[in-house]
Amino acid sequence: MFRPGGLMTDVRLLLVGLGNLGRRFCEIVAEREALLAERYGLRLKLVGAADSRGAACDASGLDMATVAAIKRSGGTIGDYPGLGHPGWGAVDLVQACEADVLLEASPVNLVQGAEPALSCIRLAMRRRMHVVTPNKGPLVVAFRELHELARSQGVSLRYDGTVAGGAPALNVGCRDLRGARVRLIEGVPNLTTGFVMDLLADGVPWDEATAMARDAGVLEGDGAWDLEGWDAAAKLVILANAVMGADAHISDVVRAGVASVPVSELQAARERGERYRQLVRAEERPDGSWALSALPTPLGLDHALGHLGSKQMGVVYTSDIYGAITLVIDEREPIPSAATMLRDLLDIYVDDSLTLVI
Amino acid sequence: MFRPGGLMTDVRLLLVGLGNLGRRFCEIVAEREALLAERYGLRLKLVGAADSRGAACDASGLDMATVAAIKRSGGTIGDYPGLGHPGWGAVDLVQACEADVLLEASPVNLVQGAEPALSCIRLAMRRRMHVVTPNKGPLVVAFRELHELARSQGVSLRYDGTVAGGAPALNVGCRDLRGARVRLIEGVPNLTTGFVMDLLADGVPWDEATAMARDAGVLEGDGAWDLEGWDAAAKLVILANAVMGADAHISDVVRAGVASVPVSELQAARERGERYRQLVRAEERPDGSWALSALPTPLGLDHALGHLGSKQMGVVYTSDIYGAITLVIDEREPIPSAATMLRDLLDIYVDDSLTLVI
Repeated sequence: MFRPGGLMTDVRLLLVGLGNLGRRFCEIVAEREALLAERYGLRLKLVGAADSRGAACDASGLDMATVAAIKRSGGTIGDYPGLGHPGWGAVDLVQACEADVLLEASPVNLVQGAEPALSCIRLAMRRRMHVVTPNKGPLVVAFRELHELARSQGVSLRYDGTVAGGAPALNVGCRDLRGARVRLIEGVPNLTTGFVMDLLADGVPWDEATAMARDAGVLEGDGAWDLEGWDAAAKLVILANAVMGADAHISDVVRAGVASVPVSELQAARERGERYRQLVRAEERPDGSWALSALPTPLGLDHALGHLGSKQMGVVYTSDIYGAITLVIDEREPIPSAATMLRDLLDIYVDDSLTLVI
Repeated sequence: MFRPGGLMTDVRLLLVGLGNLGRRFCEIVAEREALLAERYGLRLKLVGAADSRGAACDASGLDMATVAAIKRSGGTIGDYPGLGHPGWGAVDLVQACEADVLLEASPVNLVQGAEPALSCIRLAMRRRMHVVTPNKGPLVVAFRELHELARSQGVSLRYDGTVAGGAPALNVGCRDLRGARVRLIEGVPNLTTGFVMDLLADGVPWDEATAMARDAGVLEGDGAWDLEGWDAAAKLVILANAVMGADAHISDVVRAGVASVPVSELQAARERGERYRQLVRAEERPDGSWALSALPTPLGLDHALGHLGSKQMGVVYTSDIYGAITLVIDEREPIPSAATMLRDLLDIYVDDSLTLVI
């Protein structure tokens, strides 16, 4: 709004993954081209995109509304009129196209070592692209390697969307706590577990509760990733590494899933005025190492995260000079999670080193 | 921690105002010289400081622990051994000293047009110093002028500490909501009003309640600034201007103070499960203008800020793509408010454009 001059910058994007996040990102950007041009002087051009069945690319830019429409109708981007490459994988796309930024938005896949996302990200950085990703997998598997590669290649690596959906938990932890000694991180970064535990406490049987979570869009795949606490543990690893400078791995996290708590205890907690949430904790031990856990935990109303509804996530940072800072997001749809890619992109391209005014 | 190379950068600071915030800033920095050197390669040198009775300066740096000790004992910086200038004003200091950054931490003073802080800030920017300030006065009086001056001089203007104490409310609003249309800002940015209204609801008489607030360090001066809602209104003006790009002035804010609510209603609200807080609101009207208010308001537990204790402040941002994001700080002592100056300084001097890792 206070932007001087009127020069426009084109930013060429590759987008890998066109599920809930990738598709919605296209919808968000398509709808606010004028806003991005006016406020920031930026024109975001989608020069290539891939889903699990194919890809499409065009140096002059795919139409993001068309991409979103293809995906909403259940199609593959490989069928994009005139520009599709059915059967291309994401790595093919990153290899074949010139771009400024890779947006890696494929689903987390730790079983296969976060592939092919990890290879895509490595290749993009070697090709001097910035990387923005809400995909936890590559960061959990190769946190330090990817940061070192980004630094050596002189590109940005941004992943604010990996933790707590659209809440800027990593940005606050990494930037706004600068200069502090962070003593304790607590978070409820996963929606599914709280959603299901609330239903179980209501007396809804397990199968019905998980089916309702699926219908509500908060449970995908076989459910184990969320319900056994892996998702929360992965987010904790990223939090601890990014904010505390730890060198944590997912095997360091003490972890239990929703099924570890008897329904009778979920109900008793409610009687006590408490709610069970999949709480992640990172706390510094006296020897400088970190105690990491991701466990279903009863939270009373005196806890900063004890008020969270079933569509809310949050993080609390306790440090030596910034008191206890709590960040909560009310995320009814995954739009904020998708929008984190826009946040990260603008973080790379908007220069507000002088003043913060939009 | 991942910082490449080992070069140290000296940052020369002038600090105006050595009350609660300025003195504590000196204590914080004195205690973490090694941390700042190791993590960020920065050495913060206090080359000059002023309080209301005098100043001291030395190009090789004053000892921050000594400055803090002088102030704790009730003295004036004008008596700093060998380097003091009793009777110097803040403007004299900014005129006489070479420095990289002015930290303006004097108490807010809107009655005198935010002087002498406003003159100090203008002079510092003309002398090509960056400016960091938790002082609301100059920003309320001259928001656009100061931003334009900073831009034309090529210096940074940072003021995260002006709103909601140590919570990074402005940083989140200005940086992490980029790309969004912010529809509504709600905040409880003032501690004093909630503290006093809680006591009044307990049945404590007015004089005793305000005396207790004074003892607790949350009420200063004649009390009118806080209790009549001026402090909250000033913070709202800064929020609306910085985050929404409004051009708001304090005269645009619908405002009422604590005394506008009968004690019987404060007590009735508690019976209803609500708590009165001095709520600030900025909401966009259909014509693009902003409705601004700072009013004692009963908040139920269903409100994102309805759980705030008497030492907590918070802000909620509702936007089109980031859902509702709530930020809360539990600030038992004014240390986080003082630490915002360190946050702002590091924001200017730490280059993490590549990755966010500390």
